Amino acid sequence: MGKLRFVKPEIRIVGVDDGFFVPHTHGRCEIVGVVFRGGYWLDGVMRTQIQIDGMDATDKIGDMIRLSPHFGQLRVIMLDGVTFAGFNVVDTSRLFAMTKLPVIAITRNKPDFEDIQKALCNLECGEIRLATMKGLNSIQKVVTRKGEGAVFMQVTGCELGVAEKIVKSTSTRSNIPEPLRVAHLIASGLTTPIRD
Amino acid sequence: MGKLRFVKPEIRIVGVDDGFFVPHTHGRCEIVGVVFRGGYWLDGVMRTQIQIDGMDATDKIGDMIRLSPHFGQLRVIMLDGVTFAGFNVVDTSRLFAMTKLPVIAITRNKPDFEDIQKALCNLECGEIRLATMKGLNSIQKVVTRKGEGAVFMQVTGCELGVAEKIVKSTSTRSNIPEPLRVAHLIASGLTTPIRD
Repeated sequence: MGKLRFVKPEIRIVGVDDGFFVPHTHGRCEIVGVVFRGGYWLDGVMRTQIQIDGMDATDKIGDMIRLSPHFGQLRVIMLDGVTFAGFNVVDTSRLFAMTKLPVIAITRNKPDFEDIQKALCNLECGEIRLATMKGLNSIQKVVTRKGEGAVFMQVTGCELGVAEKIVKSTSTRSNIPEPLRVAHLIASGLTTPIRD
Repeated sequence: MGKLRFVKPEIRIVGVDDGFFVPHTHGRCEIVGVVFRGGYWLDGVMRTQIQIDGMDATDKIGDMIRLSPHFGQLRVIMLDGVTFAGFNVVDTSRLFAMTKLPVIAITRNKPDFEDIQKALCNLECGEIRLATMKGLNSIQKVVTRKGEGAVFMQVTGCELGVAEKIVKSTSTRSNIPEPLRVAHLIASGLTTPIRD
């Protein structure tokens, strides 16, 4: 387990999401990382690109974070699920090893591993992708806000109780932690085509 | 004067800033618009591109705002100054006419019109750019937060008192209104070159 035991209200978190892409093509997809101080204060933005359905998500996201000027301040990585740009799977254990930062992957719905397994089988390196996903710790349900839908988290590198505290305390505007809500808005807003 | 007289705490504002560009080249520059609800809640992101030192900033920014899904909710436009991507000047009166939204241009320092005049003279259509800037209303100093540096605002389309209230109430994290602070972070974070 990592060193993160106490959660300061202004803990620095990077939330990572992908932008718009055309599924099953051979292009690249924008990845956006948003640095939040607690659930309120946007501190910075970073980006990288990964291959659609590729194998480079872990390395590219890890490098984006390690090479950013915010790295020294960051305490947690939050991911919008573990698959980006289609089925480019993030190996959360390796991302934790690369950055020494706990990784919390959040999804709105409980991931259906049977469905994912079927999809991965059709792709190059399907077994490697699948092995990466099976290495994930078990999935926990978290009610972030009273009266709103629960979310699901997969945690690598810190205690579940600590992760739950971080997820709850940063869900200040919706049932999704603010670093991920905003990463989604930025990534999708900036990757829609421009009218000329 | 526009219809905006009362300032709701959750007033929707779009803050506009430009990204990184290489001065005096013939390329295009990313423009980012960030929709904020009051000074706290990021509601959406939009983008366009304009020519470096070009003449299309007013039309492109106006269209970006009018064609966005947030347009119906917006009450104010905030600009990071009136020159974007070098000397691509926004005609705030025409932007107001295009969108029917008051325009508040904010700068950290009082613009030095003599310096700007000299720079514009060296550009194609220098006189038109200059005429656009001279049409701006006079510049007002605003202290947004006690004990911090003042900012300067140029207002088109609403009363100065209303604009001042909006600028002060949205400067929740620094002496710059939050829609502009965050537009700057996003625009600059997303336009720095990616390491490959």
